[in-house]
Amino acid sequence: MELSFAKLHGLGNDFVFIDDRDCALDLTDEQVSYLCDRHFGIGADGVILVRPALSEEGDGYMHYINADGTLAQMCGNGVRCFAKYLVDRELADVASGSLVADTLAGPRPIAFSVDAEGKMTEATVNMGAPILDPVLVPVDAAPDSRATDGAPYVGHLRLDSPWGTFEFVCVSMGNPHAVCLVDDWAALPDELFPAGAEKSLSTLRIDLPGPFFETHPVFPEKTNVEFASVTDEGIAMRVWERGCGETLACGTGACATNTAACLTGRAGRENDLLLSGGLLHICWNEDGTISMTGPATESFSGTIVLP
Amino acid sequence: MELSFAKLHGLGNDFVFIDDRDCALDLTDEQVSYLCDRHFGIGADGVILVRPALSEEGDGYMHYINADGTLAQMCGNGVRCFAKYLVDRELADVASGSLVADTLAGPRPIAFSVDAEGKMTEATVNMGAPILDPVLVPVDAAPDSRATDGAPYVGHLRLDSPWGTFEFVCVSMGNPHAVCLVDDWAALPDELFPAGAEKSLSTLRIDLPGPFFETHPVFPEKTNVEFASVTDEGIAMRVWERGCGETLACGTGACATNTAACLTGRAGRENDLLLSGGLLHICWNEDGTISMTGPATESFSGTIVLP
Repeated sequence: MELSFAKLHGLGNDFVFIDDRDCALDLTDEQVSYLCDRHFGIGADGVILVRPALSEEGDGYMHYINADGTLAQMCGNGVRCFAKYLVDRELADVASGSLVADTLAGPRPIAFSVDAEGKMTEATVNMGAPILDPVLVPVDAAPDSRATDGAPYVGHLRLDSPWGTFEFVCVSMGNPHAVCLVDDWAALPDELFPAGAEKSLSTLRIDLPGPFFETHPVFPEKTNVEFASVTDEGIAMRVWERGCGETLACGTGACATNTAACLTGRAGRENDLLLSGGLLHICWNEDGTISMTGPATESFSGTIVLP
Repeated sequence: MELSFAKLHGLGNDFVFIDDRDCALDLTDEQVSYLCDRHFGIGADGVILVRPALSEEGDGYMHYINADGTLAQMCGNGVRCFAKYLVDRELADVASGSLVADTLAGPRPIAFSVDAEGKMTEATVNMGAPILDPVLVPVDAAPDSRATDGAPYVGHLRLDSPWGTFEFVCVSMGNPHAVCLVDDWAALPDELFPAGAEKSLSTLRIDLPGPFFETHPVFPEKTNVEFASVTDEGIAMRVWERGCGETLACGTGACATNTAACLTGRAGRENDLLLSGGLLHICWNEDGTISMTGPATESFSGTIVLP
């Protein structure tokens, strides 16, 4: 079976898009795994089937299949790419500057901007409200702080490690995050950096503390781990994703890091988040939800024969 | 600039192919790096430009650019893919069953077979003769053995490591290889295998001894490291590539491993080599050169806009 596809990415988080508006495709796990294989297939973090809307207001339904064949409910980078796919192919009302993407987590309103040729350049997605209740994060710790609205949260979780004690803010964006805000890189031990390198976020050997805290028993469902620093340009961060290792970009991780920097008084509610794959602009709105703005790019398109 | 491309691989060693028969393309290092980027671009180990033959007998010249922009002289997996590109597009005489691929290492005669639709299925490439002289490998050790033709070689190089002593055969195929033939996996220390796993080639934590021997001072230009075992199905092997880490397949590594197994009396001159990415059939010919037979696959094709 020959398939046409497009390859899109949001900050390097990449997807094989297939037009399935007639819902005719029923990919096996092996076919998804082949499409996502970076040496034998096309290579991607997941496959997104573009299907007809599920909701009345929807412009289309993003059917997101992870590389292992399981379905994903939502993905911040993926849904921006989904919007670009619809806008660039005029499958949504481009003039209105907004559309609704249906996902398994519900309909997501998206505002977007376009260039002179009508191609989408960036999109703003509402990512919902951060969850601070430690039972729901989940983290096995008592709240130690209160947000300005009085909500209790775990903001100073001190965990020992072979490299000393680290302090975390614990936030869920539907998935758990432990955010470590570092004010003084020089204070971290030498073993966390390559010999002779200046100590900084970019030189941190995240493969050492990342898996250690990801699997720390205080996190019953494991956790994503962020290391971050507030700089003049914005909040610089790196992400160690649960079950994946370090990734170029993580939308929920950027939202969690913005929340942690705001809660601890290191930054305001609206910031540029500087990830390894690029920049996301994040605003913790007055209604408690978080808006995330970022780019989406179509890198190439082609055809492939499915076995 | 919009470019048409095809993506081909030999046992997972993958290449972006571009038709450049008018020699009009002058890719910058940044453009090559973009094409090879697995998240932002197409993703590949290298770019191969298909150019007119350099030699009188040649059917085409394989201009191989590594992901970092440097030129490669030859690549066993790449040259099979090059043959497939020419055969499947009828840019060579398909009926003859053979063609000549020009490379920076000289013209390489290739014999190939095709399926019912005239598409190439596998190809046999002459990889040249193995180099055994320790000065030329190079390895800083005295020869300890003699091949049947009397050539001295390093066949029992014993090197200490944190995981005990390992014995290597040292062979160059234009690049240095240290081949460790393991007859009894159970004799290796527990630390080289995941806890509870049966000790075998496939469970070996090659990331521990691989970099240790790659950078051992006895190898002045570093070395590729192979771990291998003779089995009923052929010679099973895994490769730790110099400067890359573990890869799915390495043509010169398979030739070196075949040579080492033959020199030490563990196997005959002609064997199936079972690599992580698939199977290569290798014959150490009576004239001293090595023939390698293996598949090549076109996985997809498409267009990309170059920045």
